[in-house]
Amino acid sequence: MAKANEFVKEIADIHGDFPQWYTDVVLKTQLVDYGPVKGTMVMRPYGYALWENIQRELDGRFKATGHRNAYFPMLIPYSFLMKEAEHVEGFAPEVALVTHIGDNELPEKLVVRPTSETIIGHMYSKWIQSYRDLPLLINQWANVVRWEKTTRPFLRTSEFLWQEGHTVHATREEAEEETLRMLGVYEEFSRNVLAIPMFTGRKSEKEKFAGADATYSIEAMMLDGKSLQSGTSHYLGDNFAKAFDIRFLDKDGSHKYPYQSSWGVSTRLIGAVIMAHGDERGLKLPPYVAPVQAVIIPIAMHKAGVIEKAEEIAATLAKAGIRVELDKSDNSPGWKFNEYEMKGVPLRIEIGPRDIENGVATVSRRDKAGEKFTLPLNDLVSGIQNLLREVHESMYAAALAFRDSHVKTVKNMKELGDAVNDNCFALSMWCGDRGCEDKIKEEFQATSRNMPFDQSPVGDKCVCCGKKAKYKIYWGKAY
Amino acid sequence: MAKANEFVKEIADIHGDFPQWYTDVVLKTQLVDYGPVKGTMVMRPYGYALWENIQRELDGRFKATGHRNAYFPMLIPYSFLMKEAEHVEGFAPEVALVTHIGDNELPEKLVVRPTSETIIGHMYSKWIQSYRDLPLLINQWANVVRWEKTTRPFLRTSEFLWQEGHTVHATREEAEEETLRMLGVYEEFSRNVLAIPMFTGRKSEKEKFAGADATYSIEAMMLDGKSLQSGTSHYLGDNFAKAFDIRFLDKDGSHKYPYQSSWGVSTRLIGAVIMAHGDERGLKLPPYVAPVQAVIIPIAMHKAGVIEKAEEIAATLAKAGIRVELDKSDNSPGWKFNEYEMKGVPLRIEIGPRDIENGVATVSRRDKAGEKFTLPLNDLVSGIQNLLREVHESMYAAALAFRDSHVKTVKNMKELGDAVNDNCFALSMWCGDRGCEDKIKEEFQATSRNMPFDQSPVGDKCVCCGKKAKYKIYWGKAY
Repeated sequence: MAKANEFVKEIADIHGDFPQWYTDVVLKTQLVDYGPVKGTMVMRPYGYALWENIQRELDGRFKATGHRNAYFPMLIPYSFLMKEAEHVEGFAPEVALVTHIGDNELPEKLVVRPTSETIIGHMYSKWIQSYRDLPLLINQWANVVRWEKTTRPFLRTSEFLWQEGHTVHATREEAEEETLRMLGVYEEFSRNVLAIPMFTGRKSEKEKFAGADATYSIEAMMLDGKSLQSGTSHYLGDNFAKAFDIRFLDKDGSHKYPYQSSWGVSTRLIGAVIMAHGDERGLKLPPYVAPVQAVIIPIAMHKAGVIEKAEEIAATLAKAGIRVELDKSDNSPGWKFNEYEMKGVPLRIEIGPRDIENGVATVSRRDKAGEKFTLPLNDLVSGIQNLLREVHESMYAAALAFRDSHVKTVKNMKELGDAVNDNCFALSMWCGDRGCEDKIKEEFQATSRNMPFDQSPVGDKCVCCGKKAKYKIYWGKAY
Repeated sequence: MAKANEFVKEIADIHGDFPQWYTDVVLKTQLVDYGPVKGTMVMRPYGYALWENIQRELDGRFKATGHRNAYFPMLIPYSFLMKEAEHVEGFAPEVALVTHIGDNELPEKLVVRPTSETIIGHMYSKWIQSYRDLPLLINQWANVVRWEKTTRPFLRTSEFLWQEGHTVHATREEAEEETLRMLGVYEEFSRNVLAIPMFTGRKSEKEKFAGADATYSIEAMMLDGKSLQSGTSHYLGDNFAKAFDIRFLDKDGSHKYPYQSSWGVSTRLIGAVIMAHGDERGLKLPPYVAPVQAVIIPIAMHKAGVIEKAEEIAATLAKAGIRVELDKSDNSPGWKFNEYEMKGVPLRIEIGPRDIENGVATVSRRDKAGEKFTLPLNDLVSGIQNLLREVHESMYAAALAFRDSHVKTVKNMKELGDAVNDNCFALSMWCGDRGCEDKIKEEFQATSRNMPFDQSPVGDKCVCCGKKAKYKIYWGKAY
């Protein structure tokens, strides 16, 4: 008899060595590979298909909220970066610089965009003349480069793919409203598509975007209790408008600086999906972004009619818009079971002679190991669609329960340290001073995550210095 | 009375100054703007929407032929470029080089990809072990950078967007078949989606891709009689396999180098659309890629019920998947007519009190100026869908007729010169020698376009040297 684990590709124990588990999973499921240049990644077809599904879902939401896509040049004059003081300080050390074309030195070095506020600000100053041109609501899908010392596939890579929205508004209120609207889009998308509950709130001054007046984030809790900042939405005030001289003639006949927002999510979301949902068997992909939603595995496939039936079912499901794959390879069913479990495919459909005889398919859910049940073949499409919805809901509920059981309200430094060392977020009051943030980081390697919109107090003193508290805030170790 | 041209934004005469007409049209319809770095372009929302439609149509065709998308790093070690001798010669002078991160010099300079054969070859050598891994059929949507001296929006820009397919096959025959299959996909797409007839055929040795054994192209004729190479498909032989040590264990137990193809089209296709179809009024966009397929213009729009009816129609058409825009702005109908004609919107739908009374909409086709007809409101969706199909067919027929009337079969250099100076392609026999190609370029600024698959001879002597001819080939001035 073959042992069960004969079939299992080796992946590290998720409970014993989470970082190694992550590395094993992303490489062995062929989501990604390392590029030849340090810190770069190759998104292989399985990983890129996940990104395509994320893109499609987000893009529809951006368009439904009135945004249009555009594309701005990747190479930005170095002088642009210098125009906004905080921005240059934040990005200058990690930008890749193009200095030569072939053997010829360029008159001005160029920055490979780390983000596009500057070049977009420059173009907006040409395009915006009057209040009639506002609001201007543009999004860009693009690659960006930020040279990082420590890198990990999806989480932090020298080059990554993302979208960046850049909007311009006549008033401060409209720009703030847009900033929060898009944060809301990210939260809703994470919940309804990725099955990840997000902590939404405002970042501290220390953690905000270089050049913003305020940064808001969605923060996801990973299975090791660490936080992954998964997306940000910035209220830029008129900082870039002033730096790039964007002005408009308002209805009252005067020229004014408009107010801006910018917001982005990246291929980092794939890291969030992996680390919010995986288990000891590998990936567990949420159905609405899974590249393969259901895999069909023929049983006793050389028996008459099995392959034909499997192909018929695959065609029926595909026609209904279900992303289905039929594995007709010579590998054993056991090998296939393990392979698609590791790859996180939400549903497995077995079809063998007995199933055909009974007019059913045998179905297993990736999120509920060991359970098998049957669905009638004559109503398979709606059966599978219902199951995909159930898998999504159950994965969301599990992530929510995990998260809720890993947040501790803390009153002092001892409790804060215990919480973050016990793989939890700590929720506390805070005086708002940078000094306390720095001290918490130094002592516990934990950083402020964000300040929730619900600021109902859990005390009145700062968790660190004991002085009068201003904010309620989450702390955690983070990627 | 207002003069007709009161409404017209100034664009140069298409017959008098075609290059200026092109520049006016791309800027004034807001397809594009110039970026701050010489040779770069900003694709504005109207232009980018055109690209999104092109992408969606092509991507579906790539997936239907078994390809999957992936994403490879943009920054490539300089040493990779050096591994394929012809490749480095072709690309080294025009590559952008990243030499520094912030203030720190990199140990090895990096190339911003001008194309990805090298880095993909490097990864394929890791991924391919056995014949079971073949064929490997991958496509990438990406930006690339090639520094060009003379640039024009869409036609030749320092950075552009494209797709690049990279496939690997066990045999020469399969790789050649793939090369021609994808050329066929490009031709079919151009015909059925862009309404552009393409000359398909093989490029000369002089004009082929740096590193390929053979390059095939689709060539479109622009309205000034020049050719625009609009896409290429390369049979790479085992050149890159040898340079990057890609080997596989074949069924017979021996290790072999596989054979490769690569193929790409870019944002240049937008230039093809503009210059194959425009007229003195501006753009004329083919319906299946037009960002707006039908614009609704309310007439006497402050009369009761007009706006409501226009909105109802817009919703009905949008629901049926027609890309429709309703212009409710305060601009006059006359201004709007001219604006959307310039922007090339295929259909204009006027809706006023009299139309509503008669239960019809008044419709005009962009490709047939002056004609107006009515469609019943109760069957507007199918009426519009039929018209979009008719506009497509009529635009294709017009482009084909123009092209056919601008090709001359020539026997000698005098006839060849007359043809290309008369805004035509010249079709001739050719000995195959580079010397004759160079001479034709020097005398007439015309280049070889491609050698059609139908090689039935139109003579037996080379058009230039008079020696025995080997090939039938098209010549033309080109972008």
